[in-house]
Order: sequence, then structure tokens, then C-alpha cells
Amino acid sequence: MSYYTPAQIGMSLAEVDTPALILDLDAFEYNLKLLNDSLAGRSIKVRPHAKSHKCPEIALRQMALGAVGVCCQKVSEAEAMVDGGVNDVLIANEVVGVAKLKRLTALARRAKIAVCADHPDNVTALDNAAREAGLTLNVLVEVNVGANRCGIEPGEPAFKLAQQIYNSKNLHFAGLQAYQGGAQHMRKTEERRAAIEAACEKVNRTTALLALAGIPCERVTGAGTGTYLFEAASKVYHELQTGSYIFMDVDYANNDWTESGIPRFEHSLFVWTTVMSCPAADRAIVDAGLKASSIDSGMPRVFDTPGAEYIKASDEHGVLKLDAGVSLALGHKLKIVPGHCDPTVNLYDHFVCVRKGAVEALWPIAARGSLL
Amino acid sequence: MSYYTPAQIGMSLAEVDTPALILDLDAFEYNLKLLNDSLAGRSIKVRPHAKSHKCPEIALRQMALGAVGVCCQKVSEAEAMVDGGVNDVLIANEVVGVAKLKRLTALARRAKIAVCADHPDNVTALDNAAREAGLTLNVLVEVNVGANRCGIEPGEPAFKLAQQIYNSKNLHFAGLQAYQGGAQHMRKTEERRAAIEAACEKVNRTTALLALAGIPCERVTGAGTGTYLFEAASKVYHELQTGSYIFMDVDYANNDWTESGIPRFEHSLFVWTTVMSCPAADRAIVDAGLKASSIDSGMPRVFDTPGAEYIKASDEHGVLKLDAGVSLALGHKLKIVPGHCDPTVNLYDHFVCVRKGAVEALWPIAARGSLL
Repeated sequence: MSYYTPAQIGMSLAEVDTPALILDLDAFEYNLKLLNDSLAGRSIKVRPHAKSHKCPEIALRQMALGAVGVCCQKVSEAEAMVDGGVNDVLIANEVVGVAKLKRLTALARRAKIAVCADHPDNVTALDNAAREAGLTLNVLVEVNVGANRCGIEPGEPAFKLAQQIYNSKNLHFAGLQAYQGGAQHMRKTEERRAAIEAACEKVNRTTALLALAGIPCERVTGAGTGTYLFEAASKVYHELQTGSYIFMDVDYANNDWTESGIPRFEHSLFVWTTVMSCPAADRAIVDAGLKASSIDSGMPRVFDTPGAEYIKASDEHGVLKLDAGVSLALGHKLKIVPGHCDPTVNLYDHFVCVRKGAVEALWPIAARGSLL
Repeated sequence: MSYYTPAQIGMSLAEVDTPALILDLDAFEYNLKLLNDSLAGRSIKVRPHAKSHKCPEIALRQMALGAVGVCCQKVSEAEAMVDGGVNDVLIANEVVGVAKLKRLTALARRAKIAVCADHPDNVTALDNAAREAGLTLNVLVEVNVGANRCGIEPGEPAFKLAQQIYNSKNLHFAGLQAYQGGAQHMRKTEERRAAIEAACEKVNRTTALLALAGIPCERVTGAGTGTYLFEAASKVYHELQTGSYIFMDVDYANNDWTESGIPRFEHSLFVWTTVMSCPAADRAIVDAGLKASSIDSGMPRVFDTPGAEYIKASDEHGVLKLDAGVSLALGHKLKIVPGHCDPTVNLYDHFVCVRKGAVEALWPIAARGSLL
């Protein structure tokens, strides 16, 4: 926990100390509306992923515009959301271990909670935890639809696990988690479209077996910002888990969006940084390094300063390469767009919410560091 | 701030929830002693860099073994150290901006503080801030000794800046900051040795001009875990800023240490993680992804589980590739060594300090997220 906030409400952006995580409220609200507009006329639910923002203030705004709830990746993230007023959370991930299962069932008393499973032993553990807590837990089967991370194989293996959940006394089989994470940053529209078509085939193979056995599958949930219109059009998915659309980081901006139908979301998330050293004509150093903007998916992009490129990050420094004739004064502040929004948000205690150059609010990133 | 700590004092390691940041106290104390032993007989000071650990508990243990103080990169990091009882901090970095300079001078009333500068305008700003606060600030010139990040060029430019500081009414010229950060992870001993020889030449060119002008240069400070014995033997450096030696991450372990004289520090820092999915014979998924172990300098290394390799990280998941015949049970816990210690420590609220398999203490990472 840092001792100081970089901003006070009412300050001008120029006065905000650096590094700070800036949320441009106009762009953020535009993105919220744009997602809704892009889904107009479709009967599909939206359940944004809160792992991107970790902020109940944002979750509640998403729900006010029609989202049915949020997704989380960790029990502690879900706790922060429920504490912040969110009443419906899907933990789109497996929860393993006695300590976490106790917290999961405690949370299920306070809000509508669902969780995923991809292993028979985990289903047994969930059933035991639910029995001990005296409640029924909603459990989805996570199916490997092509990302080769978690998830049981589609068809027979996924069907059998669903059957086990269906037959467990203290569990309710709540559908299929079918997120194709590997598709989101395939650069070409056609690659992403083909990956989601393949995912749909894997889901269909599984739901066909469920239908044959008379096991109701109430929900197929998945999708991300890179592909969500393909899932929305598939007639296979019922719920979309888009997260990054509210922020639009560099990695998503590098996708080809032509002929995808997916709208161009605006950059709303920035790291505000100061030129702290001007050691050479072609180089300036900013005070935002990799502890201020995650570089796992590439370097941040300089937003509003032509002729400057962020080429290298160390812990507390970023190196800007300057074109000939470009110079930046010591103390100059500028915006950079994070390479990857999710782990960047996790580095800060607050969003500094700015509208038309003034600080309107500071929203706590309540689930920052919620790893458990 | 996460809501839960993953451990309680007295717990066995097996009971500690995951992901957690584990500090093996025996290995940590061994490393502390090993650094001292490796410098026996040399009249050189040690000022460990606190950006690696951000923890006053660790800083005070370093000082109890003879360190003269610590380095920090940010004013807020220095504040956390002083609040935690550290009475001597070198901010081995430039501090730019009125808000930060006010905090810097306030801190200089409470402890022995020094700061770096590499630009005449910053020296003027430091002088003004010191005058307004009614005190004298200790300022070092940061010299670019080869890393091409911050730092003014050696020789005449550095000399002139030192002269400006020396002639500033409210500043004390406190020496040269000469850290060759680019040398630390050059893999071959000879490359690192040559880089430090080149750095020494750059320092000497500068100190010769200072001597000629009769400006006392009380300290040349620098060095990191990859090179510190070369600086120690140089007769050019007076103070060593080693940080990572206490933890020993994968990136440092990948250096060639033969004929360097630098001892082999032990891994003391681990991320404790659980196998949360066993989706295929050759793949297991752990619950520590890139929000639990920074991947900027490469993947974490599996420590105590033969036949498993950490090959890929996403936000909340790590993919282990399993050799044929190796299988890991769902719920199995294991240690991984972070690729890069500094940004990994910055992801946690506590070190879970373990000795011989039991939790002995939880040390707050007080300067976590201290960006300002």
C-alpha cells in the first residue's frame, strides 16, 4: 500500500503526480456504450471479467448498463466484488484447496456465486464443501475449447464430469465454461473467427451428449474482447465475458479488426509519467518502468507525444527513443498506453478518473493483489 | 491490499495458502553472511538496494550486519524505509517535480538522505527546494558509466554538474552515482568484468577533473549482484549497492560465475503455488501466473519438482510441461523461483518467512507499490 495518492479530486491532470493510473472517463463510458450498441438486437447476456479492473465502481457501472454480473478469477477477487455491492459473480476458474473452498461457500451465502471445475476430485471437494456449509453450489464444467490451459476435453470427458456434478447432492450443474483465451490475440480476424468456430464445435459435441442424457445445460459462457461478436453470433454461447474492452490496451489495439464487426474501442487507460532525465539528444527517460506498466505483452505505447517511442523498461525507468528534432523537457508529463491492461491495473491502488483534463474521482482498485 | 494473508505464524509450509511469497530464512541469512564474507579484508562500504525487498525488516537486518544504509529508487520507498527505522537512505535516482521535492526535503529532516541529479535544471530545483525547507541537501551526480539509461556523460559534463552542485548554496556535493546496470546480466564473467573496467575509466576521467578543481569527491557508489567484487577490487568505488544477492532470482542464476570470485548465493525467494488443474498427461496448471511472478526477465523455474518445467504464464495461470512419466496430483503445492525478484516482490503484501518447514514470521512489504 503506497502512502500517498497521486491526485486529489478537482486537480488538473497536469498537477497529478506520476506515475499514476489514469482512467479517461469519457473514453471509458464510450466503450461501455459501444459494447452494448454492438450487441443490439441479440439476446445474449454480458458478464464482464472483473480481473481486468478489480474495481467494484466499474463493475456496478457495467451492471447498470445491463451486465448480469461479473466474472472473477480468484475467491479473494470475488470477495472484493461482493463487498463492493456486486451480487452475482462467476468464478471463471477452478478453486482448489480446503481454505479457499471454505471462503467460497461463505461467499455463496452472501451473493449468487458459481464456480468452474475440470477434474472429478475437485467436484468431490466442492460437493463436500457445499455439504459442510449446508448449501448448494453452482458448478460449471470448464471445457478446453482450444486454449490448452485449464479445462477438461470436450465430448465424453466433459460430459462425464457434468454428469458427476449433476448427480452430486450438494451441487447444481450450471453449464459450460468455454473461454478460448488463445484466440483473443491472434492478429488476423479470420484466425480468430476460425478459432471460435472450432470452439463452438467442441461445445456442441458436449451439449449433444448432455441433451441425449437429459441433463439441462442452462448456460454456455465465454468470449473475450478479441472475439466476442463471433460467440454472440454463434447461437452456441449465452453469455459473454469481455473484460479489456473498457480499457483497450496496446496488445488488443494491435489486432486486425477489419471485417470482424467488432467496434474500435478507445484507449481509456493510461499511465501518466514524467520525463525525469534527458541524457542524450535521442533519448529521454520516464519515471514509469515495469513496476508501473506491465511489459509481459509488449512495451507501452506513447500516446500523445509524436516522435517518441517507448523502447525499453527496467524496474523504475522507461527509455523513450526520440526522433531527430524531437526534444522533451525535463519534467514534461505524458500518457502511455499499457501493453497489457490487467497486470498493469494490479500495480496500482487507485484509478485516477479524469474528465476533460480534471480529476473527477479516485476509484479504489479494491481487488489489487487478490491472489488467494 | 488483499483481504487475507496466506499464512499464520506457526503453520507448516504445507498449510500455507497459494500463491504466497516465501522467504527461506536459512538461505536468506546465509546470503547476508556470504556477501560479508566475500568482502572480508576490503575497506568498502555496503549500501544494499531496498528496491529489491521494499521491507524495513530486511533493511534493518542488512544494517545490523554492517551495511551503512540502503538505496531506494523513489521518495515513497525512502519514506517507507525511514518510517521502518532506517536512518540513512540514498535515493539512487533523480527526483523530479515540486510535489516530490517537498516530500524529499521533509524526509531529509528525519534521516540522512542523499539524492542523485543528472541535469542542471534539476540541480536548480533541488537547491530551491532545500532553500525553502531551510536545510542542506546531499546531492550526487549520476554519471552514465555505460548503461545508457539516466546519467550525465562522464568527464567534462559530469564535472560541470558537480561544480554547479558544489557552488549551490543549499546543496552539498556528495559524490558520484556510477551504477552500471547494463552489466549485471551480461552472461559471461569476462563481459561483466570488462564493463566495470570501462565504468571505472569513466569515473576516473570525472574524478580527475574534480581533483584538479579542488572539489572533494567523498564517494563513488554503484555495483550490483552481478559485478560487485569487480567494483570492490577497483579502488575506484567506495560503496556497493547490491540488492538481489539476498534472494537470487533465475535471471542472476543464469549468469556464469566462474572465475568471478563472486560466491554462489542461494535461492531464498520462492512463489509457493498449487496445481489447480491436471488437464493432460504432459501438462499441469498452477495458480501462479504473471500477477504472482513477474516474467519480464524470463519464466520462473520449478524448484523442487523434477520433470516439470514452467513454460508459459498468463494473468492467473502458469503452465507446467511435464516429462513423460511425471504426474502431479491436483492440489500438490510446489516452489517456483521468480525470473526477476524485484517486480515479483512488488506483487505481494508480505514475505511469508519460513524456517525448516514452519512459518516463523510475516514481514510486511511496506514499500509495495511505492511509485511516487
